[in-house]
Amino acid sequence: MTASTGTRVLTDGDFRVADLSLAGFGRKEISLAEHEMPGLMALRAEYGDEQPLAGARVAGSLHMTVQTAVLIETLTALGADVRWVSCNIFSTQDHAAAAIVVGDGTAERPTGVPVYAWKGESLEDYWWCTQRLFEFRDESGAVVGPNMLLDDGGDATLLVHLGTRFEAEGAVPDTTEADSEEYGVILDVLRGTLAADAGYWTGVGQGIKGVTEETTTGVMRLYELARDGRLLFPAINVNDSVTKSKFDNLYGCRHSLIDGINRATDVMIGGKVAVVCGYGDVGKGCAESLRGQGARVIVTEIDPINALQAAMHGYEVTTLDEVIGKADIIITATGNRDIISAEQLGQTKHQAIVGNIGHFDNEIDVAGLARTPGITRTTIKPQVDEWRFADGHTIILLSEGRLLNLGNATGHPSFVMSASFSNQVLAQIELWGNRAAYEGQEPTVTVLPKKLDEHVARLHLDALGVKLTELSKVQADYIGVPVEGPFKSEHYRY
Amino acid sequence: MTASTGTRVLTDGDFRVADLSLAGFGRKEISLAEHEMPGLMALRAEYGDEQPLAGARVAGSLHMTVQTAVLIETLTALGADVRWVSCNIFSTQDHAAAAIVVGDGTAERPTGVPVYAWKGESLEDYWWCTQRLFEFRDESGAVVGPNMLLDDGGDATLLVHLGTRFEAEGAVPDTTEADSEEYGVILDVLRGTLAADAGYWTGVGQGIKGVTEETTTGVMRLYELARDGRLLFPAINVNDSVTKSKFDNLYGCRHSLIDGINRATDVMIGGKVAVVCGYGDVGKGCAESLRGQGARVIVTEIDPINALQAAMHGYEVTTLDEVIGKADIIITATGNRDIISAEQLGQTKHQAIVGNIGHFDNEIDVAGLARTPGITRTTIKPQVDEWRFADGHTIILLSEGRLLNLGNATGHPSFVMSASFSNQVLAQIELWGNRAAYEGQEPTVTVLPKKLDEHVARLHLDALGVKLTELSKVQADYIGVPVEGPFKSEHYRY
Amino acid sequence: MTASTGTRVLTDGDFRVADLSLAGFGRKEISLAEHEMPGLMALRAEYGDEQPLAGARVAGSLHMTVQTAVLIETLTALGADVRWVSCNIFSTQDHAAAAIVVGDGTAERPTGVPVYAWKGESLEDYWWCTQRLFEFRDESGAVVGPNMLLDDGGDATLLVHLGTRFEAEGAVPDTTEADSEEYGVILDVLRGTLAADAGYWTGVGQGIKGVTEETTTGVMRLYELARDGRLLFPAINVNDSVTKSKFDNLYGCRHSLIDGINRATDVMIGGKVAVVCGYGDVGKGCAESLRGQGARVIVTEIDPINALQAAMHGYEVTTLDEVIGKADIIITATGNRDIISAEQLGQTKHQAIVGNIGHFDNEIDVAGLARTPGITRTTIKPQVDEWRFADGHTIILLSEGRLLNLGNATGHPSFVMSASFSNQVLAQIELWGNRAAYEGQEPTVTVLPKKLDEHVARLHLDALGVKLTELSKVQADYIGVPVEGPFKSEHYRY
Amino acid sequence: MTASTGTRVLTDGDFRVADLSLAGFGRKEISLAEHEMPGLMALRAEYGDEQPLAGARVAGSLHMTVQTAVLIETLTALGADVRWVSCNIFSTQDHAAAAIVVGDGTAERPTGVPVYAWKGESLEDYWWCTQRLFEFRDESGAVVGPNMLLDDGGDATLLVHLGTRFEAEGAVPDTTEADSEEYGVILDVLRGTLAADAGYWTGVGQGIKGVTEETTTGVMRLYELARDGRLLFPAINVNDSVTKSKFDNLYGCRHSLIDGINRATDVMIGGKVAVVCGYGDVGKGCAESLRGQGARVIVTEIDPINALQAAMHGYEVTTLDEVIGKADIIITATGNRDIISAEQLGQTKHQAIVGNIGHFDNEIDVAGLARTPGITRTTIKPQVDEWRFADGHTIILLSEGRLLNLGNATGHPSFVMSASFSNQVLAQIELWGNRAAYEGQEPTVTVLPKKLDEHVARLHLDALGVKLTELSKVQADYIGVPVEGPFKSEHYRY
Repeated sequence: MTASTGTRVLTDGDFRVADLSLAGFGRKEISLAEHEMPGLMALRAEYGDEQPLAGARVAGSLHMTVQTAVLIETLTALGADVRWVSCNIFSTQDHAAAAIVVGDGTAERPTGVPVYAWKGESLEDYWWCTQRLFEFRDESGAVVGPNMLLDDGGDATLLVHLGTRFEAEGAVPDTTEADSEEYGVILDVLRGTLAADAGYWTGVGQGIKGVTEETTTGVMRLYELARDGRLLFPAINVNDSVTKSKFDNLYGCRHSLIDGINRATDVMIGGKVAVVCGYGDVGKGCAESLRGQGARVIVTEIDPINALQAAMHGYEVTTLDEVIGKADIIITATGNRDIISAEQLGQTKHQAIVGNIGHFDNEIDVAGLARTPGITRTTIKPQVDEWRFADGHTIILLSEGRLLNLGNATGHPSFVMSASFSNQVLAQIELWGNRAAYEGQEPTVTVLPKKLDEHVARLHLDALGVKLTELSKVQADYIGVPVEGPFKSEHYRY
Repeated sequence: MTASTGTRVLTDGDFRVADLSLAGFGRKEISLAEHEMPGLMALRAEYGDEQPLAGARVAGSLHMTVQTAVLIETLTALGADVRWVSCNIFSTQDHAAAAIVVGDGTAERPTGVPVYAWKGESLEDYWWCTQRLFEFRDESGAVVGPNMLLDDGGDATLLVHLGTRFEAEGAVPDTTEADSEEYGVILDVLRGTLAADAGYWTGVGQGIKGVTEETTTGVMRLYELARDGRLLFPAINVNDSVTKSKFDNLYGCRHSLIDGINRATDVMIGGKVAVVCGYGDVGKGCAESLRGQGARVIVTEIDPINALQAAMHGYEVTTLDEVIGKADIIITATGNRDIISAEQLGQTKHQAIVGNIGHFDNEIDVAGLARTPGITRTTIKPQVDEWRFADGHTIILLSEGRLLNLGNATGHPSFVMSASFSNQVLAQIELWGNRAAYEGQEPTVTVLPKKLDEHVARLHLDALGVKLTELSKVQADYIGVPVEGPFKSEHYRY
Repeated sequence: MTASTGTRVLTDGDFRVADLSLAGFGRKEISLAEHEMPGLMALRAEYGDEQPLAGARVAGSLHMTVQTAVLIETLTALGADVRWVSCNIFSTQDHAAAAIVVGDGTAERPTGVPVYAWKGESLEDYWWCTQRLFEFRDESGAVVGPNMLLDDGGDATLLVHLGTRFEAEGAVPDTTEADSEEYGVILDVLRGTLAADAGYWTGVGQGIKGVTEETTTGVMRLYELARDGRLLFPAINVNDSVTKSKFDNLYGCRHSLIDGINRATDVMIGGKVAVVCGYGDVGKGCAESLRGQGARVIVTEIDPINALQAAMHGYEVTTLDEVIGKADIIITATGNRDIISAEQLGQTKHQAIVGNIGHFDNEIDVAGLARTPGITRTTIKPQVDEWRFADGHTIILLSEGRLLNLGNATGHPSFVMSASFSNQVLAQIELWGNRAAYEGQEPTVTVLPKKLDEHVARLHLDALGVKLTELSKVQADYIGVPVEGPFKSEHYRY
Repeated sequence: MTASTGTRVLTDGDFRVADLSLAGFGRKEISLAEHEMPGLMALRAEYGDEQPLAGARVAGSLHMTVQTAVLIETLTALGADVRWVSCNIFSTQDHAAAAIVVGDGTAERPTGVPVYAWKGESLEDYWWCTQRLFEFRDESGAVVGPNMLLDDGGDATLLVHLGTRFEAEGAVPDTTEADSEEYGVILDVLRGTLAADAGYWTGVGQGIKGVTEETTTGVMRLYELARDGRLLFPAINVNDSVTKSKFDNLYGCRHSLIDGINRATDVMIGGKVAVVCGYGDVGKGCAESLRGQGARVIVTEIDPINALQAAMHGYEVTTLDEVIGKADIIITATGNRDIISAEQLGQTKHQAIVGNIGHFDNEIDVAGLARTPGITRTTIKPQVDEWRFADGHTIILLSEGRLLNLGNATGHPSFVMSASFSNQVLAQIELWGNRAAYEGQEPTVTVLPKKLDEHVARLHLDALGVKLTELSKVQADYIGVPVEGPFKSEHYRY
């Protein structure tokens, strides 16, 4: 298989996607998404001439979707050489992957970008793909590692750090029963590389100037590495930019929660009793959208501050046990595990809809559900299962307990991803552009300066017709900020 | 092709659907929908023993969807013999049609119901199907007409009345240039029947005891017939039950508008400028759901009372010309024509989303759009077209200007259709049960008594966990109503 | 006491108000209110030259507030001779009454209007005032009855009809124990007039060309009179104009409920559990405003249709007994009696706030409360009482169970009263202008034609910056309405 | 004048309030407020036995309102000796001050607390009172300084620091023309003390173990002092507790903005165009409450992040110049100056309502307004002025541009102040209880640990019927927090 066009020819060895013939459809959707991603498009315009990523070889591990395609093409438009994998075995949109491999045939992007990703990878596939991420080629065609990472969840970062550690220790430990299936696969990969080249990952790690990380989970891993003095290169925590955490989580889920429920079930949300477990940014967005459709929303919370916020917004706040028998819709949005037990699932109303928009599929005890005596499962349609208990009542489980907005709808919409990804691009520019300054420093995890956070917001205003007021010098002095910002203290909560 | 099961065998001559093999999938969805249609299920429980529709041969012309399937099986559960066609060439859900033809294999519904409907009929198909609606068979297998009509939009009613009239006049008029294409097809059908049996429709009409009509449009036709003294049988206006017009239009569209936009475009609604043309019940539901997603909603109106209502709910109310250049989403919800002209479409923002949830596809001048010099059309996916103007800017047109909630999503959800269809069932029982009383009266159009309207509402309360307060005798006397209702005067507006 | 200015001098015999010295302050508030009553001001502009009420002697019985002052001066600006009383012993704003008596000193309104009203009348005062309403004077100074009534609650209408009946019967019946205190006062008044002039009320009634009635209660009395064939003159039901019932009740109470609670208690509404008894237009407005402040709203209802509406808007709907122990705020909005019993009041949370915005003070059993063993009452401030039960817990009762928006705040705001009162003015013009046509007809109760209802709405659009869209002729024909309206069928519910 | 009761007698020399006879009324309101301040009452219950403030002499400078009375009596219930002044010349509620001076006659609080505060102090009065704050008496009756400060705005802190500085410098500088009137008064005071006792403030400062500060402004001064190395004692920034800044500002203003507008103007908010300048926490609360009343809200912002938030909530965001001519209500909520210029005030709609809920009265250029040629001012009622421009149009200015929620209503409600004040109490306990540990450290400004912030929230849940979910040990470990909290990282934004 050969992916066409331009001066360079990608062959099958350069990529692995599901179906190249989807490229045209993918390109159409990318083209539409560009309009909805004004931040990225503005960065192309702002930095296109300057080429701040020239020389950067960016290895990206992040859901290979249409929105990510716009990110990838922004990175290349700014001068980067890019390779890509998805950070989740299910999240690749095959038409987007195909379009990225093929390129768009324009003078600017005549050739595509190597992608290794398809919807429904096995774990072995997944880590095989992730290995390929590190195999850039120089002009001579020789394999050379990346010099920048762009990560979502930290899997690419993990591989480099784990590989480096085992190479230092001289051996990959045996897989034990306590290890997860996936960790076993990772150890197998590392055994292979250790056998082939005992300094491979060490070399890769030394070549990397920095990583920018998208998620809470990945950021937590980075802080742990930094705390333990094992962080190999500087990192920027993109997750905690205001224009990421307060936008993506809140407004993204406000959009995609009800979209997922609607596509999955066609059930009227108005008038229903909907329980949202967790009132963080995700839960706030969920509650708002369910109320916006006329549901009666009840919240569960562990944190008294968030609980008080929910009460102040007029929601009933109580425990799941109190309402399990009267809820029509139950959504987990916590980032924690064991939120709904199998036993509680057995106590719901008939045909209660149960779904997760938090993080992993352990928010709902799906494994325990499957072990419930007398239970049967009927798949209504993909990602929508009816589980029938021995007493005859059923629940409708969405996406097998995985993220329903990704599984039953199309995840966050482009506009909100534009804000998140603009932070990614600015973070890449920061780390790559100032790599000399970072050199020789102890690697740490930092967030983008507030000024860049504000810049990202600013890039999205025109698209919404927002007109900003400008401070006069007198006013700026009065509140002690520059006329052009940043405007708030670091601890301001928005 | 033979549709199985039970004591009677439907053969191809008894039905015509797209694909019988979809019946299993259809049955699963019907089963889920039953839970969401508590009104219909309660009527089955309430009237199942009594069999109030025994002897009724109900000819139904109404979108052949999963929800309608639950209606059909409610009618048969109450004793009716039923035949069915869709009232729209696109609206049939093939899996629902298949399931109805096959039946569910239970003792109660061992055999299916004859259905003539599939998604994507031609106009000739459509009127051929509608003819079949009238061909019940008696126990001997002889063809016999229906004795009840259940109509949506009035096409079945129209055929009987038009046929009767032309038979009285002895001839079907020639088709003229002024006639629509569809009217030409109808005239062809009637020419055929006149040739075959010059008293066919007259006989059919004489056999019918009454019609129950679902929609504004159909009801308007009935009132015209009654006014002109041409109405052949009594009619009940189901559309104007409170539990139909204030529920279906308002809450149904609140649900399905954003569902349609989301499925069609995946575009974030939050932050966008959305114009809703018309602030009747449909427009009210649209505005509420768009605001619930964080859009800035602007309303256009012709009626000063509705305009004032919109202002009182905090919406900007202005003319389309004022906002055409800044709207991201434009929705027509008027029941009128020419709401957005082709010229206005040429003045939108780039990638403005344009759709209709009002009634016909003439709310948006799609024909004029297609005639615009230099315009090109790209189909993004079914029911989603990008039209590019000569100046390069584009609009995203949903469902070719037809109802976007049907075309891009799945129409109204089951719960709200349960309210509408419960009115249909009660209206059928009223007309059939009291056919002797209606006999000999001048046929008129009436609405269901308020007590039945309240009854329909009551049937939907338990499902939502609503506990009703009961009037004491003293209280009932104090406000001059019976303890058990009806509670309001006829002109109460809810 | 003499009220100044102009060509005519009002002396104490011409009026009776609390304190003339408040006139200046009243005039300032009237002047501000005029801006907020664009409907009335537009009617002055529209009809000022024409003087359609020339010759009319309008006797008005309606809360003597600042807003009513603008109504009164609109009636005089249109040519009427006017006298006024309040229709409630507590509702007079003394500064408004004073200003009306004095006039504004302009050429247009050099002299004042006779008013008999002050805040805190006794029942005897009240009916003495109402008697004065009928004592216009002709140019010679002789007493002459009114020829038009403008009524709110129907007390003026009642006096004429009761007086006429007793004169026909030749006697006023004895007061019995079953009669209310107030009815006893009325009978006393009528005994006095019967003794003085046995044909007094009969003559007054014969002189009256029509009445326009503001409220549900008054309208109900009128329909009963008409049904019994006892209605003495034609009546227009102003209450059921859309721009009255759907505006005044809904938007007025949305405004004034929380205003009353805030002024009375200063208690934070956000986060509280608030029960609204009744989900008619008043209850809808209450629920919306409480939710808008962040309260968790629970609704009680008797009517299944309204109950379903409440559920569809996301409110919990249950019985008062279920929530009496957890509500922080309990509001009656029913128009019925015995909504909260004394026993239930004994079961509330400590310091629960209890108030009524429905109609009379019998919605809450205040009498029963006062009889509760061991209860004590502490007045926190006027219209705010803390009642302490024997168990030590207390409730905060607003306005002694009377309308809290009038008692604890200032009632409906001017804008919404402008809509109601514009209907009053148009109704007066209709009955007076067409008095010849009504003559000789059986008196009936009618509502204003929809076109006038729409006209009232139209008069309020400019003030809110609303731009209306105009129908084209083609569009108007398409939906079968005139280009300029009316736009809706009679049974349209808005 | 003598304030009664208990073992100790306060005489006039011990206090100075407007009218002791208001004490009974004040006590009633304090008693009601206690129920609405569950955080403070819970702290009394939690710490009453322990007496953690025993030995503390707390000098408090904070609006002397009913809510503050509950704070004062909480401090005394925890063992503190307390003196009090108001931090604003207008904000004292005289009945609250009187009640505090008198005490409540119970065994726990037999005697009152010295207060120097009344509504409407002059600047000289104000700083005279503030001097009295520092004059505690020991058991022998000798004057002794406080050992703790509780400050709001930092005036008490300022006096100590300025006095100490001038004593170190040996002189108080001359008052210059550039100094504000108020600064001149302060210098006069300090000249007096310097003359009387050249080491007075130095001694006072040395005796103080810490200060807890309520507001943004006061906190900013503290950070400046700490930065410059001049901070005399440790400080806790109460303002930036989540349960203060996100509650008081957001929910407090959501409540009190419309309360202020309503009491001032009685104008219907529904349907109006309302501009909110600033979309921080205060602006967010304002916008929400205005929309909750049916206004169309438009936002102005300088910060692109906040602007994007406003857009995402569906508000139009533009500049004031764009909307100055169409707004009915304009509210400043910025914390900055010159938000509305006098020129802009000249361009409003007739009778536009203009008010400030931000910080000082320089948000609106009232001084410039007064200098406008041809302008006249009419006071409608206290705190409500109509300013008429030469062209005849007017604006309604609330509270002369000062905080309208304090001037036209009663400020923040008790419940939200309970959260703020609970933080104050915990901060006092922290500084006093650990005074030994702070001793010898460089004084700094800190915030309360998150665990205490969560504790404050927790104390308010029962009152609202909130039931919190508890983490299991497994869950707590999974997200890396203790079972009992704190639950969030320091940079979490809520």
